[in-house]
Amino acid sequence: MTEFDDALTLTDGRADLTDGWVIGEAVNGGLLMSLATKAAADALSAVDSHQDPVAFSTTFLAAAQPGQVRAETQVLRAGRSFSTAEVTLSQGDVACVRHTATFADLDANSEPVHLQEAPPELPDPEVCAPAARGGFAEKIRLLDRLDMRIDPLTVGWALGQPARDGEMRAWIRFADGREPDVLSLPFFLDAMPPVTFTFGALGWAPTIAFSGHVRSRPAPGWLRMRITTRNVIGGLFEEDAIIWDSRGHVVAQSRQLAGVRMPADSERGTRAPESA
Amino acid sequence: MTEFDDALTLTDGRADLTDGWVIGEAVNGGLLMSLATKAAADALSAVDSHQDPVAFSTTFLAAAQPGQVRAETQVLRAGRSFSTAEVTLSQGDVACVRHTATFADLDANSEPVHLQEAPPELPDPEVCAPAARGGFAEKIRLLDRLDMRIDPLTVGWALGQPARDGEMRAWIRFADGREPDVLSLPFFLDAMPPVTFTFGALGWAPTIAFSGHVRSRPAPGWLRMRITTRNVIGGLFEEDAIIWDSRGHVVAQSRQLAGVRMPADSERGTRAPESA
Repeated sequence: MTEFDDALTLTDGRADLTDGWVIGEAVNGGLLMSLATKAAADALSAVDSHQDPVAFSTTFLAAAQPGQVRAETQVLRAGRSFSTAEVTLSQGDVACVRHTATFADLDANSEPVHLQEAPPELPDPEVCAPAARGGFAEKIRLLDRLDMRIDPLTVGWALGQPARDGEMRAWIRFADGREPDVLSLPFFLDAMPPVTFTFGALGWAPTIAFSGHVRSRPAPGWLRMRITTRNVIGGLFEEDAIIWDSRGHVVAQSRQLAGVRMPADSERGTRAPESA
Repeated sequence: MTEFDDALTLTDGRADLTDGWVIGEAVNGGLLMSLATKAAADALSAVDSHQDPVAFSTTFLAAAQPGQVRAETQVLRAGRSFSTAEVTLSQGDVACVRHTATFADLDANSEPVHLQEAPPELPDPEVCAPAARGGFAEKIRLLDRLDMRIDPLTVGWALGQPARDGEMRAWIRFADGREPDVLSLPFFLDAMPPVTFTFGALGWAPTIAFSGHVRSRPAPGWLRMRITTRNVIGGLFEEDAIIWDSRGHVVAQSRQLAGVRMPADSERGTRAPESA
């Protein structure tokens, strides 16, 4: 058992999350999305239904701390082509996460490829920057679970030279060598630093709502990932993520709405395209 | 009262939907998303909470027919900055829609604009194509509710010359002159023909899961809209939509996963970028 599989193990609807998955004091939202997806799969397994998530949406209601998490599930539909379950993750009396996931047969829904985005050209992982573990990243214990190599062209923010372009690219995989699978994709989709780091906004960017699609079963090996934002408006921004596997196939994509505190100079530093 | 406001009127948690909103036999999903968002707003109003939707996600469980729709609501959070309610729309014993919506104070969250996508250059509405009402569009009574002017450059599919580029642009507004507001944005986000029409796939494209963000309160007048897809894989595709108001402000955006039956020639007709 890897530490990721440990975290996703539900016994009588309860999981125990170690403090190895935190960002600051709170458990990483991506891990909670994978855990909730696993709980939904378990609920559908009990009615002999689909086991591959193809779409999910998550609302973050309250931060979760390390410790026990309770998953309550409801099967909303067990259909021929698609099945849907809803999951609430709670700690004590507090609901932390509401999650709806739709499942199907992914093998029947990932071929043929009519159109797909090409993966970005990235320098070899060996020459990309491993995620820093000093300074502001000290409390991000989550980073010990990941092997993340950010494209040096998109990491100027770490050197005080934010590119202000709203794009970051990276190689990513589990640090312990566990291979990616469909249940890990919700986790990876939210594993990179917030794309608003590229504007020099180096604070936490709490996710308000997250939605993701799983498009194909990932092959073993490195994943490639790109995150972008095009609209940073009044303290909210969307972050789009897309992940390719080692074959170059699109395996997952997501869009989230999150909060950001932009630097004081950003209004003149970043011009809206329409006024440029 | 306009016909859109009529459709969104809930009395004791029940709404009556006329057959004016159908595509084929089923009530348009966008109308159901606006109706569910209205039901969520009503539930939050009862606890004196936020009234502006900023994010929502919708899973379509079964088609809805014209007639009575029942909305059951649950307030998941009534917070200082954000509030969330969940809504189930049902007909008889059948749950048709599960919808989660997060609300906030939109005026406090739509200024300043740090970064936003520029609206597309479109020919004047007068020289754009009104949505056709013959042929396959005969049963889309929804089109009578809309004034939609599709950019001629993106409407080759209607002339048997699909551009195969996964992009469509249009002006859009209510046919009866009702001005856009935040509650109408979920409806508009799903009002255009499926973007897969641009591949010559002129069939219905059933939405599996839909998520949207409201970014700003729309000014009166025409809305501009762009829909795109970049990944059409094994009968599923994502459709991203973005809407600007008459001032050129981004007011809403969305991503959905939907199903499509691609034409038999599409595998060779449309090349994946990576193999191009």
